[in-house]
Amino acid sequence: VVNRNQEVIASAITNLDLHDLARLTCTYDLPACYVVTPLRDQQDLAHQLIAHWCNGVGKRLHPHRGQALERLRIVDDLPRVLQGIQAEWGAPPVVWASSAQPQPAALCHGEARRQLQGAASGASSPRLLLLGTAWGLAPKVLAGVDAVVAAIPGCSGYNHLSVRCAAAVLVDRLLDPGRAG
Amino acid sequence: VVNRNQEVIASAITNLDLHDLARLTCTYDLPACYVVTPLRDQQDLAHQLIAHWCNGVGKRLHPHRGQALERLRIVDDLPRVLQGIQAEWGAPPVVWASSAQPQPAALCHGEARRQLQGAASGASSPRLLLLGTAWGLAPKVLAGVDAVVAAIPGCSGYNHLSVRCAAAVLVDRLLDPGRAG
Repeated sequence: VVNRNQEVIASAITNLDLHDLARLTCTYDLPACYVVTPLRDQQDLAHQLIAHWCNGVGKRLHPHRGQALERLRIVDDLPRVLQGIQAEWGAPPVVWASSAQPQPAALCHGEARRQLQGAASGASSPRLLLLGTAWGLAPKVLAGVDAVVAAIPGCSGYNHLSVRCAAAVLVDRLLDPGRAG
Repeated sequence: VVNRNQEVIASAITNLDLHDLARLTCTYDLPACYVVTPLRDQQDLAHQLIAHWCNGVGKRLHPHRGQALERLRIVDDLPRVLQGIQAEWGAPPVVWASSAQPQPAALCHGEARRQLQGAASGASSPRLLLLGTAWGLAPKVLAGVDAVVAAIPGCSGYNHLSVRCAAAVLVDRLLDPGRAG
């Protein structure tokens, strides 16, 4: 991802990134959520947190939480996400990125939803939706994806959702079959 | 709100509740987001955080964040939310609650959206959407509202979104005019 000066950085994982994204993943029945960081101490913290809720005292106090957190996969980089999906689902994914910036030729949410519905009804590749924390995905990541999904429009010039809220809105927009637009 | 044993409690405010809800409020151009807690030390922490981003060094580093956080109001209880809305917008609000549990006679998202669109085009009361952290709003709060908005359906039996993600999905569903369902 990039920071506010457009420099490529590794951002910190917060506790609530893991909880919120895992709960979203489980509520919408997505098979997995990959959390990408090259920082070994961040990976260790994430693994400790997941172990607390999936195997430790957290599992006894609140079993629902482990059910969500067990869908998280902590990996070093994007190539390892692609390898993991290939290993678990037998094919490399079609990769969609998200961005808060208007993108040329962005894939609109309605078209993305129709493609997913088509994919669900037949044999097809897995899909990967990429989101970035901090100031968003790095340009070299955006340049390598199959499509960039349209930005969430909002209702004002301001467009700065957290990655947690942006993920929730996008997943709801892309999976909800009740939507027309 | 209630805890997992259905006891009425005051839950803790997290740093990211304030940031995520403020950014959501600003992106969807909601005029204000009230954060309700009777705990004085939690209120003090929230005020310190808001001051950091609206007036302190945070404002210089990242002016967008203060623009969002200035829409937060920290208050003791629900009657003070109603008083605040009356004072700022000249009328008491119609109060809608949210719940992850199926409710009898819930207001569906499409109908709620149509009511808001009607309200925006004419003179009408402000609307207040209530969300609860922890295990949700207390029964006596739910019993006193004008309507309970339908639960977010999700795609599995699991329905445990964080308040941050639930707020994002509901606000998007209730305000997006591109939706039909």
